[in-house]
Amino acid sequence: MLLRKRIPWVYLMAKIKVETSLVLIYSTLMAVWHRELDINHISIPLAVPTILGTIISLLLAFRSNQAYDRWWEARIIWGSIVNDSRSLMRQMQSFISDPDYSVNVNRFIERFGNRQIAWAYSLGRTLRGQQAFEEKELWLTAEERIWAGKHSNVPNALLSLHARDIRTAFQSEWINPYQQVELDRTVTRLCDSMGKCERIKNTVFPTTYSLYIHFALYLFIVLLPFGLTASMGFVQVPLMVAISSAFLLIEKMAIYLQDPFENKPTDTPVTAIAQTIERDLRQMMNDDTRTPQAEKQRSSEREMEQVYYVL
Amino acid sequence: MLLRKRIPWVYLMAKIKVETSLVLIYSTLMAVWHRELDINHISIPLAVPTILGTIISLLLAFRSNQAYDRWWEARIIWGSIVNDSRSLMRQMQSFISDPDYSVNVNRFIERFGNRQIAWAYSLGRTLRGQQAFEEKELWLTAEERIWAGKHSNVPNALLSLHARDIRTAFQSEWINPYQQVELDRTVTRLCDSMGKCERIKNTVFPTTYSLYIHFALYLFIVLLPFGLTASMGFVQVPLMVAISSAFLLIEKMAIYLQDPFENKPTDTPVTAIAQTIERDLRQMMNDDTRTPQAEKQRSSEREMEQVYYVL
Amino acid sequence: MLLRKRIPWVYLMAKIKVETSLVLIYSTLMAVWHRELDINHISIPLAVPTILGTIISLLLAFRSNQAYDRWWEARIIWGSIVNDSRSLMRQMQSFISDPDYSVNVNRFIERFGNRQIAWAYSLGRTLRGQQAFEEKELWLTAEERIWAGKHSNVPNALLSLHARDIRTAFQSEWINPYQQVELDRTVTRLCDSMGKCERIKNTVFPTTYSLYIHFALYLFIVLLPFGLTASMGFVQVPLMVAISSAFLLIEKMAIYLQDPFENKPTDTPVTAIAQTIERDLRQMMNDDTRTPQAEKQRSSEREMEQVYYVL
Amino acid sequence: MLLRKRIPWVYLMAKIKVETSLVLIYSTLMAVWHRELDINHISIPLAVPTILGTIISLLLAFRSNQAYDRWWEARIIWGSIVNDSRSLMRQMQSFISDPDYSVNVNRFIERFGNRQIAWAYSLGRTLRGQQAFEEKELWLTAEERIWAGKHSNVPNALLSLHARDIRTAFQSEWINPYQQVELDRTVTRLCDSMGKCERIKNTVFPTTYSLYIHFALYLFIVLLPFGLTASMGFVQVPLMVAISSAFLLIEKMAIYLQDPFENKPTDTPVTAIAQTIERDLRQMMNDDTRTPQAEKQRSSEREMEQVYYVL
Amino acid sequence: MLLRKRIPWVYLMAKIKVETSLVLIYSTLMAVWHRELDINHISIPLAVPTILGTIISLLLAFRSNQAYDRWWEARIIWGSIVNDSRSLMRQMQSFISDPDYSVNVNRFIERFGNRQIAWAYSLGRTLRGQQAFEEKELWLTAEERIWAGKHSNVPNALLSLHARDIRTAFQSEWINPYQQVELDRTVTRLCDSMGKCERIKNTVFPTTYSLYIHFALYLFIVLLPFGLTASMGFVQVPLMVAISSAFLLIEKMAIYLQDPFENKPTDTPVTAIAQTIERDLRQMMNDDTRTPQAEKQRSSEREMEQVYYVL
Repeated sequence: MLLRKRIPWVYLMAKIKVETSLVLIYSTLMAVWHRELDINHISIPLAVPTILGTIISLLLAFRSNQAYDRWWEARIIWGSIVNDSRSLMRQMQSFISDPDYSVNVNRFIERFGNRQIAWAYSLGRTLRGQQAFEEKELWLTAEERIWAGKHSNVPNALLSLHARDIRTAFQSEWINPYQQVELDRTVTRLCDSMGKCERIKNTVFPTTYSLYIHFALYLFIVLLPFGLTASMGFVQVPLMVAISSAFLLIEKMAIYLQDPFENKPTDTPVTAIAQTIERDLRQMMNDDTRTPQAEKQRSSEREMEQVYYVL
Repeated sequence: MLLRKRIPWVYLMAKIKVETSLVLIYSTLMAVWHRELDINHISIPLAVPTILGTIISLLLAFRSNQAYDRWWEARIIWGSIVNDSRSLMRQMQSFISDPDYSVNVNRFIERFGNRQIAWAYSLGRTLRGQQAFEEKELWLTAEERIWAGKHSNVPNALLSLHARDIRTAFQSEWINPYQQVELDRTVTRLCDSMGKCERIKNTVFPTTYSLYIHFALYLFIVLLPFGLTASMGFVQVPLMVAISSAFLLIEKMAIYLQDPFENKPTDTPVTAIAQTIERDLRQMMNDDTRTPQAEKQRSSEREMEQVYYVL
Repeated sequence: MLLRKRIPWVYLMAKIKVETSLVLIYSTLMAVWHRELDINHISIPLAVPTILGTIISLLLAFRSNQAYDRWWEARIIWGSIVNDSRSLMRQMQSFISDPDYSVNVNRFIERFGNRQIAWAYSLGRTLRGQQAFEEKELWLTAEERIWAGKHSNVPNALLSLHARDIRTAFQSEWINPYQQVELDRTVTRLCDSMGKCERIKNTVFPTTYSLYIHFALYLFIVLLPFGLTASMGFVQVPLMVAISSAFLLIEKMAIYLQDPFENKPTDTPVTAIAQTIERDLRQMMNDDTRTPQAEKQRSSEREMEQVYYVL
Repeated sequence: MLLRKRIPWVYLMAKIKVETSLVLIYSTLMAVWHRELDINHISIPLAVPTILGTIISLLLAFRSNQAYDRWWEARIIWGSIVNDSRSLMRQMQSFISDPDYSVNVNRFIERFGNRQIAWAYSLGRTLRGQQAFEEKELWLTAEERIWAGKHSNVPNALLSLHARDIRTAFQSEWINPYQQVELDRTVTRLCDSMGKCERIKNTVFPTTYSLYIHFALYLFIVLLPFGLTASMGFVQVPLMVAISSAFLLIEKMAIYLQDPFENKPTDTPVTAIAQTIERDLRQMMNDDTRTPQAEKQRSSEREMEQVYYVL
Repeated sequence: MLLRKRIPWVYLMAKIKVETSLVLIYSTLMAVWHRELDINHISIPLAVPTILGTIISLLLAFRSNQAYDRWWEARIIWGSIVNDSRSLMRQMQSFISDPDYSVNVNRFIERFGNRQIAWAYSLGRTLRGQQAFEEKELWLTAEERIWAGKHSNVPNALLSLHARDIRTAFQSEWINPYQQVELDRTVTRLCDSMGKCERIKNTVFPTTYSLYIHFALYLFIVLLPFGLTASMGFVQVPLMVAISSAFLLIEKMAIYLQDPFENKPTDTPVTAIAQTIERDLRQMMNDDTRTPQAEKQRSSEREMEQVYYVL
């Protein structure tokens, strides 16, 4: 799903080109200034940037950890959405008893499965701040689309429709009471996953930590030349650029990882995961059709999504 | 829900202005004293503050981690309160069978939903040490308000009322035994979330860790000028202020994060989350009303809550 | 529940007074010896204590983490004991159907609730190595007290009595089979919490880690003056005391946190938590009585417990 | 299952021979260059590589942690597959009531158990990107093989067959409704484990972190000789090789651990675990046969798998 | 259960005596060589061992963490085995309805409880690589012993017998369907605990990490004298021994903790825990017997187990 292609250096560096340029200019000025005016007396002992470097390293490690955990939790949630979608479909098919092989029941199961696919797509879109439905939403009936569209939380409305269908099945005696409760539990798990995604989406990483790391980082960059210039002259310029771009890159990565639902090319691949759900649920509904065309079209879409995942 | 607006530097610095001023005065005095009286013999090798700096960094990293975990756990608990409120409502609606379409049942469900909204608001208020009810509590009937008001733990009393209603529904044969047990489980999860909030609220972060970090931090700040003055003179003053304010800011942040229910502008947004519950449950109860006015009013309230979240 | 009062420095320092005195004597002797006999040739480069300082910092961070986790887990377990006690009572009240409003059933529920309160108190006492019952145990009947007293694991015996009562209720047809199983699950969760407390109580933190940290810490303290004396003379004495007391305090804190059930003034507040359970369960049993006197008396007891919590 | 044999140094070093050779050449050139042309003025103070070394250490620690967690999570998932396979079989045998001791039921259970074994093998193969079935798949009937082969996700198709069989058993009244739901839950857990494996398989470790660590590592290696050559001459060459190979080895290990399903000799031992499942399930099905030959053959296969596990 | 007795230093040092002796010889040789032949030019700047020291500290911290986690997880698993054994017994007693007070049922429960005790003992023995049964296995009937002995996984076979007994109880109508399912769940939890122990037992800690830490550690020890000798002469010998034994001790501890089921005196106390299960289950079966003799004998056995636990 995610790519492993080599990321060109240019791409990486573009992310921090402004900061790196500033560092370049600053350290060059420092070196020039040092040669023109002899300012030995304000050279700073290297121990000071070393202390700062240790703090920043620890803070960046802390932040990378938390950002990674958010990103990985988002991935885990979508993984369990896949699992629960499959389980819901499997339970639907194995629980419903239909001695008359009626057409109604088959249509019912199919509509239920289609709605589950629509739920996955609309949850992904909602999290990215897009419209919950595409203009031509194929997986829902017209009534479902209109009814759900009236709610501010569309995926939650679709789960309510699931619950109503389960009640209908129970009242029509297609499923027994235990099966109803068990299906409801699977829907509850989907409801939990939905709420967890919203939590990650709506809770920003404590802003002041970000700010502080910024502050400490620039303090470090500003101080470093005072320690280096005296002994190194112009050689410090490439050194400064290399060291500070290293720190800046880590910071950028944490910023990208910590918000996994922002409709950036670096997101959690919610569309690709919803496509997996679509593929599996459709195969579970019609055993005999592999639909190679749709498959191919979809895999080309997936290709397009592979633009430099993560950062 | 949380803001992302730029936090003005002034705001940040106001939090540590006393400490920073003291550092400023102290390091200036040190520099003056050094120039007037030649006191080379008590300059401290820089390795000593370096060792201290490493310890403090590790301790602050440890503390930031624990404080962040408390804050994030509080957020997770309120996230699951949202999920379980939605599930409770969805289960109520899909479990209750009402062949006569009686008015009673509809009122019953509505009262249940209203009480769940009241529970979320009153839990938030109780955690912040406020009155459990607003003066005009709209979501409860008069009897409920009086009865619950007699208890010291109001949210727990409301859950007891939930349990009684579930029993009534069972005895009226609106739900079957399995559904009763399943509803009770959702109430139990709400009860667990409530208890977890109380645990975080009532357990202070081990006081001595806080004290110790304070102690080590000031020891570090006191020692640093002895290492710097000899080689740097007055240049050490801004350096001292910058380094120590960096450390002090991290400490402050941990202090703010570790107590997420203290009715400070930087809390877990319990009111905003309760409003989300209100919005979703009301839409689930009356499918056709989006009530844009209420929506707008509420979003303006939310605006007001956005005063510099976290720190 | 836990205090936030300022801990006097004297209290903190009393914990490490022996060690600090030894450091004071040792570093003074070193400084004197250095001045009398010129022993420059065995001064140690400061990099050596720096390396040691880094290791010790990491080890102390590791140990603080594990000790904190044990303490926090103990707190989480007692939090869930509160939740499950409330749920058990709520389930009892909402599950039992008693069409005749018989006195028997009311007494039954009351005895059950009282036993749950007794369970919480006796578990706390057992964990602290005290007698499971107070001399005048008010919450149990005489038979229950005698029967449970015959067992080596009293809280487990009380849970067996719970299970018997649940069976009686089932056989008297006060509850249906699903409700019996559901009540049993709540009892099972209480049984799990009990076992988790015993695990923390009975498992010591790996003794050799403690020993090793001690060893590395004293090695560090012994070596440090060799690095400092040459350049600093008597100034090193207060420095040595400050640095080593910092390290020693962290170690002490970890030692206190890692055993949360040792009947020290710094424990997990099991009595206070059991009092919360008592208060909530009693209110759930008799809706109309707030019993302000009992409340007041209890809050004064709580006051007494507030003697410098955690270290 | 996993080996503990001594890994020859040669094997380890072969993994990083290219990188080590480059370091060797580079540091030799640096030493030569330094002796021929006096270039004292661009020697870098050692504090610079020290700062870099600290950052890299922290980043490698972070990465090792995450890679280890992925590897350990994969192991945990396969551990729970073993547990759930055993539970599924045990439940099948103890739930099905068969008063007539009919041959049908025995065959039914056996087919179910065989399919579970086939599921474990095919999941392992699918994760490694191999064909889901061996050419001669012994554990499935011909129909099952054909039907499952039509699906893109073969293990999921086998779980659907499980669900159908459970439905058949329920409709034939071999199991009661509660047992059906309970069996379905075990199947749901297997479905979850399957999805978790796919998640780990399909989610690459954030590529930019890998890249950044690479970048920082080579920066460190390039800078180090500037600090060392001046004082050490050719002695720095072995030193450079030793230090950099240490860092490179850790990086390699993280790369190997982070992808536990890549059909390398260093994978999670999915085949060996599936063999354990096969052994236990077969013994559960036929109590009396220990089949020592099969056992021996299998253990020799296991021998072959022991080629230098992990890295 | 675990001891807290003072561990003699001799015991600790014996674990690393070979390594320490080698370090002693090596550093003495270095000091001699340095004095005889003047080799100033290959003294290494102390920054190099400092960098290495930082890396090793972080790696050892990482490894200690993982090893501790394995050890603690093993302890948690055995803790939940205690809990589930108690719950299983309690459920057996409170679920089975026996209106005739028949002898059969009492014997049935007793046999079930005895088998659970046997299961705990045999699981402990199997994990330590011992025979699953003692020669005189008192807790099983002869048939059970023979039947289980035919299986390669004896504890799993005992769980199958549990399942059969539960089926018998269900078919004899001593328990209802919900109770059967609930008992099966407790057995499933025991089966999970068993599988988790096997996972920890059968998965070695990634061998190359161990190797690498070894490599880095010896590199550090080899390099350190080059930095120290020049300035310190023979004083470096005790210093070298002290520092390197500190590192070596931590490594040893991690090695001991990471494999908690190896039949060393430092294991998870599986026998002591099984004895706790025996004590509690026997008391639950015969309320009136405290059997003080057996108690005393057992506590003396426990004494013997207390030989220097952990390391």
